[in-house]
Amino acid sequence: MTRLHVPTRLRWSDLDAYGHVNNAAMLRLLEEARIDAFWSRDDPSAEAMATAVLDGRTDSQTMTLIARQELEYLLPIPYLRSPLDIQLWIGRLGGASLEVCYEVWSPVGVAPAQLFTRASTTIVLVDADTDRPRRISDVERAAWTPFVEEPLTFRRH
Amino acid sequence: MTRLHVPTRLRWSDLDAYGHVNNAAMLRLLEEARIDAFWSRDDPSAEAMATAVLDGRTDSQTMTLIARQELEYLLPIPYLRSPLDIQLWIGRLGGASLEVCYEVWSPVGVAPAQLFTRASTTIVLVDADTDRPRRISDVERAAWTPFVEEPLTFRRH
Amino acid sequence: MTRLHVPTRLRWSDLDAYGHVNNAAMLRLLEEARIDAFWSRDDPSAEAMATAVLDGRTDSQTMTLIARQELEYLLPIPYLRSPLDIQLWIGRLGGASLEVCYEVWSPVGVAPAQLFTRASTTIVLVDADTDRPRRISDVERAAWTPFVEEPLTFRRH
Amino acid sequence: MTRLHVPTRLRWSDLDAYGHVNNAAMLRLLEEARIDAFWSRDDPSAEAMATAVLDGRTDSQTMTLIARQELEYLLPIPYLRSPLDIQLWIGRLGGASLEVCYEVWSPVGVAPAQLFTRASTTIVLVDADTDRPRRISDVERAAWTPFVEEPLTFRRH
Repeated sequence: MTRLHVPTRLRWSDLDAYGHVNNAAMLRLLEEARIDAFWSRDDPSAEAMATAVLDGRTDSQTMTLIARQELEYLLPIPYLRSPLDIQLWIGRLGGASLEVCYEVWSPVGVAPAQLFTRASTTIVLVDADTDRPRRISDVERAAWTPFVEEPLTFRRH
Repeated sequence: MTRLHVPTRLRWSDLDAYGHVNNAAMLRLLEEARIDAFWSRDDPSAEAMATAVLDGRTDSQTMTLIARQELEYLLPIPYLRSPLDIQLWIGRLGGASLEVCYEVWSPVGVAPAQLFTRASTTIVLVDADTDRPRRISDVERAAWTPFVEEPLTFRRH
Repeated sequence: MTRLHVPTRLRWSDLDAYGHVNNAAMLRLLEEARIDAFWSRDDPSAEAMATAVLDGRTDSQTMTLIARQELEYLLPIPYLRSPLDIQLWIGRLGGASLEVCYEVWSPVGVAPAQLFTRASTTIVLVDADTDRPRRISDVERAAWTPFVEEPLTFRRH
Repeated sequence: MTRLHVPTRLRWSDLDAYGHVNNAAMLRLLEEARIDAFWSRDDPSAEAMATAVLDGRTDSQTMTLIARQELEYLLPIPYLRSPLDIQLWIGRLGGASLEVCYEVWSPVGVAPAQLFTRASTTIVLVDADTDRPRRISDVERAAWTPFVEEPLTFRRH
């Protein structure tokens, strides 16, 4: 599997009154991992992922809209100071949209490794001027194709 | 259909830099609607839903853990001062878990009504002492059964 | 005293792992009270405060920027289903800025009433086109003057 | 000056609909910097600050409660991928409380450096069993004394 590994730090405020990472906070964490994976960096000194070819500035031509998300919470996540190991790949690469798949693992080096959450997000690229979907460009497709793997299948109820 | 209608207010901070309700904020909104629907109220003067038989206090015997969630975002939600009309029902009532289904609609009275988001959440009732699932009680089952309807089916990618 | 009373609901996610309303969540609550007090409503059926003469839409001509805030946390706030009674007045009305003062009280009807938090916010009105402060208009000043009272004085350390 | 420098990353969701870091999000950022500065780490491989002698686990004997906060927002903060340089010192070391002072600067290496926000937080150490303030221990005082400097003075309105 060719997965991206995005170390993603919790914040203490991600915990809820049960002392676990709140289910909604998980979407913030996936958002941060996704930005690291897909948004290019202004800062030339910073390491960027090979997939980071989207321009995420708020005045850029492209907005990334979320069309659907699915999450399976396997284990409650306690407060951890070391970053989660969010593993990320592309489950489907369409015309104007893609499905991002994630596995959220315990911090690298913690044994035994624990799989906390599995999730997928369908993203649509939208032209900021017309508010309409726009096609994935050749540059984007070339950057993303190496990371296309089998999509997650979730347990049915 | 026997649905609960839970008026649920946005906060301005639910918007992100695109000026829409953020995808993760939606889970906070569903959480608020769910609490109104399922958690009993201390306050005897307050109107409670017929389904509100769970004790949501942090020192209560039951925790409600989220096992899975699925969301389909149909339309971006702008900032709205009037409460969203979150419609909620039970798509499946199991032994120790239930599936809550939601449709998130524009505020009551706005025409034409718009369906913004469809979602479902699988909740497991967990005993706070043992950290293990516990069975749905007879009182809970009696309160919830009238609101069981067909679960949502989501569009497949 | 001529204070505005803005009933403001907690969300369960305002609690942190200690089971209290998080200190940062308080600023979200004050923001909501402030919007109710100062932003006009599109919805003609909705009750608006006399002070609600600012246009809060994201495409409006005015942005309200926060220049400073001061908060004194007197008592931890538990999870409450009934809205907090946020009392709000104007401690100073300047040329392009104003100081809003708040007292955050337990829900109306709970005895004895408890004062949880005291706070103040200095707001600057900024022209969205020029990004520069703009003067408080005559309409705004007329609406706000009746609510000017002594500003809070905070306990010094 | 002996200041701690705590690199602190923004999240995209810290932005509000104006495209700036929201004023309430700033308190989350200061919280993260404070945790890095004061909470010990389980992970022996991780670098910890000399000041990190508080046990921040939710089952520990000490809770850190916030008694007051003051913030001065000097410049709006745009979305930045590189971490903010939060500079932190102790403005006052009392019997059971301390005042933490912060300056929030643009990322290290960006020229010219920009000072975005100045802030202070008064923290009370509370015994988790009795819910009452407890004295700063000798170990804590020894760790923290080298970082005591002049407290911030805020501009008066």
